[in-house]
Amino acid sequence: MNPREWIERKKRGEALPASEIAALVRGFSAGEVPDYQMAAFLMATWFRGMDRDETRALVDAMMHSGQVVDLADVPGPKIDKHSTGGIGDKVSLPLVGVAAACGLRVPMVSGRGLGHTGGTLDKLESIPGYDTRFDAARYRQTLRTVGATIVGQSADLVPADRALYALRDVTATVDCIPLIVGSILSKKFASGAEGVVMDVKVGSGAFMRDAASARALADALVDMGQVFGREVSVLFSRMDEPLGIAVGNAVEVVESVEVLRGGGPEDVRTLTLELATDMLLLGRLHPTAAAARAAAEAALDDGRGLEKFCAMVRAHGGRLDPTRADCGLEVATVQAVVGAPRSGVLAAVDGYAVGLSVVDLKGGRQRKDEVIDAATGLRWRARIGQSLRAGDVVAEILARPGQDTSRVVQRLQDALGWSETAVVPAALIQGRVGRRGEG
Amino acid sequence: MNPREWIERKKRGEALPASEIAALVRGFSAGEVPDYQMAAFLMATWFRGMDRDETRALVDAMMHSGQVVDLADVPGPKIDKHSTGGIGDKVSLPLVGVAAACGLRVPMVSGRGLGHTGGTLDKLESIPGYDTRFDAARYRQTLRTVGATIVGQSADLVPADRALYALRDVTATVDCIPLIVGSILSKKFASGAEGVVMDVKVGSGAFMRDAASARALADALVDMGQVFGREVSVLFSRMDEPLGIAVGNAVEVVESVEVLRGGGPEDVRTLTLELATDMLLLGRLHPTAAAARAAAEAALDDGRGLEKFCAMVRAHGGRLDPTRADCGLEVATVQAVVGAPRSGVLAAVDGYAVGLSVVDLKGGRQRKDEVIDAATGLRWRARIGQSLRAGDVVAEILARPGQDTSRVVQRLQDALGWSETAVVPAALIQGRVGRRGEG
Repeated sequence: MNPREWIERKKRGEALPASEIAALVRGFSAGEVPDYQMAAFLMATWFRGMDRDETRALVDAMMHSGQVVDLADVPGPKIDKHSTGGIGDKVSLPLVGVAAACGLRVPMVSGRGLGHTGGTLDKLESIPGYDTRFDAARYRQTLRTVGATIVGQSADLVPADRALYALRDVTATVDCIPLIVGSILSKKFASGAEGVVMDVKVGSGAFMRDAASARALADALVDMGQVFGREVSVLFSRMDEPLGIAVGNAVEVVESVEVLRGGGPEDVRTLTLELATDMLLLGRLHPTAAAARAAAEAALDDGRGLEKFCAMVRAHGGRLDPTRADCGLEVATVQAVVGAPRSGVLAAVDGYAVGLSVVDLKGGRQRKDEVIDAATGLRWRARIGQSLRAGDVVAEILARPGQDTSRVVQRLQDALGWSETAVVPAALIQGRVGRRGEG
Repeated sequence: MNPREWIERKKRGEALPASEIAALVRGFSAGEVPDYQMAAFLMATWFRGMDRDETRALVDAMMHSGQVVDLADVPGPKIDKHSTGGIGDKVSLPLVGVAAACGLRVPMVSGRGLGHTGGTLDKLESIPGYDTRFDAARYRQTLRTVGATIVGQSADLVPADRALYALRDVTATVDCIPLIVGSILSKKFASGAEGVVMDVKVGSGAFMRDAASARALADALVDMGQVFGREVSVLFSRMDEPLGIAVGNAVEVVESVEVLRGGGPEDVRTLTLELATDMLLLGRLHPTAAAARAAAEAALDDGRGLEKFCAMVRAHGGRLDPTRADCGLEVATVQAVVGAPRSGVLAAVDGYAVGLSVVDLKGGRQRKDEVIDAATGLRWRARIGQSLRAGDVVAEILARPGQDTSRVVQRLQDALGWSETAVVPAALIQGRVGRRGEG
């Protein structure tokens, strides 16, 4: 094993044989390849990329760095969803209800929030009793009986990804397509998904800000799905302002339940239905997008999606009462209102600042070991393209009585961009790659 | 301090302010910037380079990471020489004698061999009693009384370079011009040199194999010398076969003394005189290259260079008898002869393999902590362009009786490249940059 030589060759732009990529990942996982050599390799990969065979070897080696869940004995198509992350994106919650109601099995292994981005696990843990720990027996059982499960990563599921991701985070090598593909697909495949619908965010609040990079990532994900004999389709969705109204944890669960009751903000509902449509197509449950969409809509509007979601929550020990406006969760009350600092047309929202304001409210964390307050958050009331007058409500701050909100108000006012003339908001759905039955 | 952000910006191709380069080097030296972040930064620098201000900040921060020797009170021009390294390159030894005899002060801080390259310190330590340890008082005193000193790096001289070089070595980031400039010049400036003549090797056995890279390195070194108000000139010399006949440690000291007696291989003599000429020009001791060259030649041929060399050896406790053929050193005897495996014109020699064959003989090391046998080595008898018949002597192997030499013989036979037609060897001196009085 000669990591220095592998770094050298990657640096020169050579493609490495699959056996060497595998040895590198295994060596790193085993502590035989030190952090500093892997860091140099990651940076060389940022510059040189990886070809198809290298990426395949990376996904495969990462996937097999720990337990690989085999769901062959669970009937039905196992289709998952993954999002590249956005502010107020709670779509996973209504989506798993709808998808399960339509006959899919959704084996979703999720993460926690860090920095400005929220995490699905944190949202679920605002439900009293919900146990996000991965338990192989319960995972399988919940998929079989309910059809959907959302849990955290176990120590033994793709351990290479945890170590690699931590290193990428501190070495500025997160934004590298083959490494992203390796991270996402190794986890999805190891957790038993036969197909994955990717929600790739585009726009100012997205991780991949330019359309070309987002498209390249999508192509790489779809291609690598095929290489592994699984299917990946990508939906590009706009992320230039918070998705929906609720931003936080408990407050996002409540909004998700509103969507599952057939209401809720239009953008959350639409994105849920569009992603459900693509998942149903991947699962071969409907021949056309129109049929799949109609099935998803029915499951949302007739309460079957909500039923499935509640069943999943119960299966994980959670206590949620969908008949109550707050679902029985602890949601903080409005302690301050963010008024528009000027008149004009709202043209832009700095999603990073909105995310950090939730951290300010203790609803998110800057370090992995921080404990969050799931009750706090925001209700985001303004939309890009709206004409506002100075003082109009832009957001309500949900906080603990006595909590200092002045910094948050200031941060959110500074997060707004203005125009004197009309602004046409971008479409929520920006395009697709790899959807079944399409080009 | 935010190393991740510095890595990110370097990765994107931004130039960092001098203050951030300095903080990075200081943080790394202090153990506050971890290896893995520095490794990622080094690799990003390999791809993006550094501009003049960044390189200046790097040299300066490295130089000031430890003790900086001030030789202002030692009279005479303090001029050093540095070589990018080659097989059989013992030129430092005769050169310091000649330069000191001509009135220069040569404050040379040298290194040990690692891998295929030999090290001047190892060669000197084949002289019984020679103490290579850096002692500030003796360093200054020897420069004053003899005019030349060759010692090892003290723990307190440019400690940042030791740590950085070790990291570059294992992360494939050695061959990066600003990092090379930082490493070389920080050490030379910290050890008190006012001017440095660089012997940049070119050709198949050189570290910088292509002429464009060698030229770019030379330009960067000369430019950075000016930035620091010191002078650097560069001589390009051919390195496509061993320099001289002796390759090893004691055997190279013996050959150096032969050159100092006015004999020795022509290429070693020529390179010694050419480098001495450039050093004298940097030291302003002669107005023209012709006058400098004549002075150097006289010092070599009338024994004053040898006298100075012997005085330097004595000042360091070494016992060397220049009247004896082996100078009183332990030199191993010929235990095997490498014969030409075929007839033809010798067209190429793999210097890397020649260097490694000395390691095979324990005359070099693969790990820093290995103890070497200074008595072993080679006498390289063939020259590129020579017409050889199968069985003609290519090299003699100097080894301990009973030492297995079969692997070395095979390695050296495999190291030879052949031609059916005439081969014209390249000129020893390939060009210059920055020599005083020239363009």
